[in-house]
Amino acid sequence: MKSFVTLTTDFGQSDYDVGVLSGVIWQIAPGAEIADLTHEIQRHNVLEAALVLERCTPYFPEGTIHVVVVDPGVGTQRRAIAARLGGQRFVGPDNGFITLVRQRALTENQPVEFVHLNRPRYWLPNVSHIFHGRDVFAAAAGHLAAGVPLAELGDPIDDPILLDIPTPERTAQGWRGAVVHIDAFGNLSINLSLRQMQGALIRTVRIGETQIDGLVRTFGEKEPGELVALFDSSGKLCISVVNGSAAARLGSQTGDAVEVTLG
Amino acid sequence: MKSFVTLTTDFGQSDYDVGVLSGVIWQIAPGAEIADLTHEIQRHNVLEAALVLERCTPYFPEGTIHVVVVDPGVGTQRRAIAARLGGQRFVGPDNGFITLVRQRALTENQPVEFVHLNRPRYWLPNVSHIFHGRDVFAAAAGHLAAGVPLAELGDPIDDPILLDIPTPERTAQGWRGAVVHIDAFGNLSINLSLRQMQGALIRTVRIGETQIDGLVRTFGEKEPGELVALFDSSGKLCISVVNGSAAARLGSQTGDAVEVTLG
Amino acid sequence: MKSFVTLTTDFGQSDYDVGVLSGVIWQIAPGAEIADLTHEIQRHNVLEAALVLERCTPYFPEGTIHVVVVDPGVGTQRRAIAARLGGQRFVGPDNGFITLVRQRALTENQPVEFVHLNRPRYWLPNVSHIFHGRDVFAAAAGHLAAGVPLAELGDPIDDPILLDIPTPERTAQGWRGAVVHIDAFGNLSINLSLRQMQGALIRTVRIGETQIDGLVRTFGEKEPGELVALFDSSGKLCISVVNGSAAARLGSQTGDAVEVTLG
Repeated sequence: MKSFVTLTTDFGQSDYDVGVLSGVIWQIAPGAEIADLTHEIQRHNVLEAALVLERCTPYFPEGTIHVVVVDPGVGTQRRAIAARLGGQRFVGPDNGFITLVRQRALTENQPVEFVHLNRPRYWLPNVSHIFHGRDVFAAAAGHLAAGVPLAELGDPIDDPILLDIPTPERTAQGWRGAVVHIDAFGNLSINLSLRQMQGALIRTVRIGETQIDGLVRTFGEKEPGELVALFDSSGKLCISVVNGSAAARLGSQTGDAVEVTLG
Repeated sequence: MKSFVTLTTDFGQSDYDVGVLSGVIWQIAPGAEIADLTHEIQRHNVLEAALVLERCTPYFPEGTIHVVVVDPGVGTQRRAIAARLGGQRFVGPDNGFITLVRQRALTENQPVEFVHLNRPRYWLPNVSHIFHGRDVFAAAAGHLAAGVPLAELGDPIDDPILLDIPTPERTAQGWRGAVVHIDAFGNLSINLSLRQMQGALIRTVRIGETQIDGLVRTFGEKEPGELVALFDSSGKLCISVVNGSAAARLGSQTGDAVEVTLG
Repeated sequence: MKSFVTLTTDFGQSDYDVGVLSGVIWQIAPGAEIADLTHEIQRHNVLEAALVLERCTPYFPEGTIHVVVVDPGVGTQRRAIAARLGGQRFVGPDNGFITLVRQRALTENQPVEFVHLNRPRYWLPNVSHIFHGRDVFAAAAGHLAAGVPLAELGDPIDDPILLDIPTPERTAQGWRGAVVHIDAFGNLSINLSLRQMQGALIRTVRIGETQIDGLVRTFGEKEPGELVALFDSSGKLCISVVNGSAAARLGSQTGDAVEVTLG
């Protein structure tokens, strides 16, 4: 049985931890095709994992299984979960990594289903205290890939942990959003999307004391060092410095308010 | 339908940009087997991509599809292209990345065919201005992998952009070549190959004021710090410092002349 | 014919050397599924490769073929070998990388079989002096993956190079072991396993002048900066500093003695 599995972790690639996950999945589901989404999530940054999943999962085939191991709570009592959200499936620790994909599934009236991975027969025989990525999550993904129904992996739950991600508000002149993520290059990702603008043009973007007039379509339209606002490749509003760091230039932090006026 | 796809980019691996490409390809061609060639091409270094393809493609199966996204011109009017060169296929921006593979196909009287990827039905529905790797090139590779003929993807063209890569010349005593690439370790790659020597032995290699007498077969024949010339694993002449940087030692740059005398 | 192949090297990922291995394998065995185990083995550290294989191979399917290219002797007279050890197969230079997997197979009365890869018809047509990973080892793995029997690849041998890895000894009060590996984070890996304790509790772990009382189950039980002993995710005794480097704290080196008392 052919199925697609992706791996998203904060393990980095200096170790063999990533490599062993493929073995566990293939032992259980020899037909699984496995791809790395990224192993460079900032350590323990569950929000970053949630954002990466929101952006990437629409590009994967129906039924794809996403293993997401950003797990600051490994070895504690945090639950292990699996989910069906829209047409895809997710396995990982119950820490909110599914927040944005779940939100989208709800908005689009698609399936939303969670189980607690509490049935040891779907784990590896010996579960270490410090590597549930291998012993619980890769094993559960293998069983899903081999055709085991989600509901069979554990008891249903309806109270998964959710991240507190700010939602944007309408204002008299446009929208008030917030910086939800700052990437390694210092680009500021804002919780406002092209879709929310519904065709309206953005006249100004204000963050702190700084105002940016109009948007660019690509970085190439401005000179290195210039501050720009644009919709990134995921359709999210982004504040950047061409070939530089907007976070450093503006001293910005996650949570900072961003005001947009429509023209 | 089983087919092989490789990915070559300058994205690095700190982001999820590479990971999403597999999703796009699998959505269109569930039978595709995907391998990373490298994601560590120097940023915007199209020549390096051309050299990597020249060296690696002979080792891949007939029919393999190579997606090559080193794309300084994304968002500008540069064309997107696909090609059949010898037994393999290539997808990427029209910037010269195919120069050396095309040259080899011509030399060997093998097929050389280019199309302009100008038919939106073979792109993703929404094409961003800054991520054609995902929205145009991975999609086109997916369609090729799913069995769509090359000629169906766009109008034929015969004027792809070609890099100006110096060709070596015969001299009275041997060959005059040039440094065409300097890798991350400071090794100098010369545009002279073992095959061109046709069995003749190299007596001296001269670069600037420096002369190297004879070739070694492997680095292990000399002490760390010694300057050596050898044919590398691709059969190309290479000037190196054992465990060191020839570029730093000699102050060499791409384009520097190299004189070889045959013995 | 479907088969699983893993790749373990010290190549790093800044180059295309890893990428080309998949091509060689697929040319010979189109049904091969290929996964990276790790390419970040410390350069020329054969012991680290041996430890990684010991830890990871039990998680891969029966019949998996492991290509292991940590090859300080490439270009010298060192042999190329392939092996069946337990249910899995291995290809690489004859330098001891199989020491621990072989030891386990012997202990468990499983198959142990070695051949010298001395039949050029199972190499690539042109073997470079400096890239046997591609020209000999990936090719041999491809033939195994395509169904060629191990014994067909070369003449049988029974004297593979073995690493001199210290074995622990029983003492009046417990065990005397040694540091066999120090990872990039400064964690000390000891040649004592949970299985050897046969259910006995560890009372103290002594290294040099330092004594650690009792074990923790996870790092989370102690504060950052505290020195702890625990069984790692492979069931091996490990001495660590929470969020720090035990090697730096203790000035430890591979080979240092470790005394364990049982309570």
